[in-house]
Amino acid sequence: MEAVGLITEYNPFHNGHLYHLRIAKQLTNAQVVVAVMSGNFTQRGEPTILDKWERAKLALENGVDLVIELPVFDAVQPGQRFATGALRLLNDLKVKTVVFGAEHPEWDFARLSSFEQKFRHDNFTDYRETFATQFNAALVAKTGISLTNPNDILAYSYFKACQEHGWPLELVPIKRQGKDYHDQTLGVNLASASGVRAAVKAGQPIENVVPKETARALVGLTTIPSWQTLYPILRNHLIQAPVNELQKIYQMTEGLEYRLKEAAQHELDFQSFLHAAKTKRYTFARLLRLCLYTVLEITTSQMENAQPHHHVLAFNERGQEYLHQVKKKLQYPLITKVDAKMKDHVLSLDYRAGKLYQNFTVVEQDVKHAPVIDLSSKKH
Amino acid sequence: MEAVGLITEYNPFHNGHLYHLRIAKQLTNAQVVVAVMSGNFTQRGEPTILDKWERAKLALENGVDLVIELPVFDAVQPGQRFATGALRLLNDLKVKTVVFGAEHPEWDFARLSSFEQKFRHDNFTDYRETFATQFNAALVAKTGISLTNPNDILAYSYFKACQEHGWPLELVPIKRQGKDYHDQTLGVNLASASGVRAAVKAGQPIENVVPKETARALVGLTTIPSWQTLYPILRNHLIQAPVNELQKIYQMTEGLEYRLKEAAQHELDFQSFLHAAKTKRYTFARLLRLCLYTVLEITTSQMENAQPHHHVLAFNERGQEYLHQVKKKLQYPLITKVDAKMKDHVLSLDYRAGKLYQNFTVVEQDVKHAPVIDLSSKKH
Repeated sequence: MEAVGLITEYNPFHNGHLYHLRIAKQLTNAQVVVAVMSGNFTQRGEPTILDKWERAKLALENGVDLVIELPVFDAVQPGQRFATGALRLLNDLKVKTVVFGAEHPEWDFARLSSFEQKFRHDNFTDYRETFATQFNAALVAKTGISLTNPNDILAYSYFKACQEHGWPLELVPIKRQGKDYHDQTLGVNLASASGVRAAVKAGQPIENVVPKETARALVGLTTIPSWQTLYPILRNHLIQAPVNELQKIYQMTEGLEYRLKEAAQHELDFQSFLHAAKTKRYTFARLLRLCLYTVLEITTSQMENAQPHHHVLAFNERGQEYLHQVKKKLQYPLITKVDAKMKDHVLSLDYRAGKLYQNFTVVEQDVKHAPVIDLSSKKH
Repeated sequence: MEAVGLITEYNPFHNGHLYHLRIAKQLTNAQVVVAVMSGNFTQRGEPTILDKWERAKLALENGVDLVIELPVFDAVQPGQRFATGALRLLNDLKVKTVVFGAEHPEWDFARLSSFEQKFRHDNFTDYRETFATQFNAALVAKTGISLTNPNDILAYSYFKACQEHGWPLELVPIKRQGKDYHDQTLGVNLASASGVRAAVKAGQPIENVVPKETARALVGLTTIPSWQTLYPILRNHLIQAPVNELQKIYQMTEGLEYRLKEAAQHELDFQSFLHAAKTKRYTFARLLRLCLYTVLEITTSQMENAQPHHHVLAFNERGQEYLHQVKKKLQYPLITKVDAKMKDHVLSLDYRAGKLYQNFTVVEQDVKHAPVIDLSSKKH
């Protein structure tokens, strides 16, 4: 069996994801679709609208055969580490091809990557703006290409990761369909995930832009997970912990500990806090991720010592068969059911993230939670 | 001017407090009533029903002339440190007499104290029960006196503190009137503070048992501060912080860090958590205080290095005059307005407790908060 790999958040699963999935199968003739999916927090550091199990179930119901969790230590990261973490798992799972959307699939992403290497070495000395901003300016000057669309940037990161690690994965960028990522209005049949979330929040209909299973899962949603709910936790830790403790938190650098502590003391809601903490030097995404590291109290050493693993969230008959095919060749541990020992070791950070997510739903996210299994495809 | 000192929580101010205040004046012929009052958290480690400023105002409106905050590091403590901290301030304020309620004011509390000294040295070797339980059993055997009523125990602690420190305060226990402390039903004109709080929670009338000012302050109360609101903060820190960090918290001893961490992982509401954590060895009050130390992330060294001070919450003309009379002789700093520097030093723990209390009311509790002042008595 040959597998095609997808790197996803499915927050939530919508028609664009369905399209992507079908194209990926068509293009590759793969018999199995393996999705690596973020857990309960997105790359931007925000809680997902549905928990990882519900999202994995929706993926399964819509054609994915095997869903593996991208651990929080790789999922909530800048694009490059996110991309690397996801491809590391797909490569270990012996996936042949990885298909992903890009705004400009025709670009030679591999060539751009070697240019960055040189730029990072020679030119990044101006600390008033983000690295991404400066690198992109240089890239435009040199190649005429502007790496500003989010999926182009991710596509670029995938190529770079494979180059650096020598992974034999075949990378296939495809044209991203439908609305722009940042567009929050609903298209007729396609919308971005953020558009779907905004519609759910506003109580607008979403049936046209998501599969019926997603619509059903979101209809019953009473509270939408958001940082506002977590802010009392974040605020308290920023206030109570001394600066030298805050400095131990992963990515709490360049005096951010003072800046965040100050903002926490004055601001009583999360949006005001975020705007008080923001400077040109840090993107909102970086600050959001740092907020998550802070409430999870993740230290630099915990992040650096985190161990890659395959936590299976969902599979069907084909997924099961594929797992049997590859499981003896895996470098990283395969986890189908989390026990009390794992929660304190290999799965520690995901477990802790799951406990935080219990502020939104009381469901235990890891310990003894069995994968979502659908073996009805046997009958087909 | 001679002053009588009262040691109070006023949570909230009720008719029993009014009675106590009037008797204290009558008995002592003092011209000034000075109350040392807990801030936003009680001796048992619970948030107060109204913040310290509102409670200080009610005290002022009902006959107290000067309200000084008992800092959180002495207020949220077992009886002995609570008593010692309060008397330390009253002694520094040159108060002549301290009047307090006791169930058995006729007892010779001073004599009992020397007995404890000996017991502590010889007999406390059984760790299956609390020290208080064991000491009391020995006390009954030796003297026939059972130190089980909460105000008798506090009275005893006041005598012990004065003995140990050689403070020249005159201690006057008086008969406690009205309902028992633990009785939650309302008497006709007298009720315990916990009875008043229970009535407020249940939406029952309280006008008969509290002064009109208290009734007015509580009528508008929409949310009653409780640990349930703070539990997500407590739970998250217990889960996210490693055991060796939790061990740094004041009073986190004897493996409690493991016990609390375990309970936090499984329990989603505060009452279940508390019952899961409870053993015969620890009283609920001790656990509640430990919960507060945990959310405030107070380390043993922070607690030990805390500096006594007089934070003035409220005064009238007589209180002002008395402050003028004593302020040059004070050993501890007199604080009438907290600035940004104090919040990081002498007032650090109270400031942090006030920030936590902002989960109940958005009012800034310390920085730049002026005392409640009523100078209308000038006219009398």
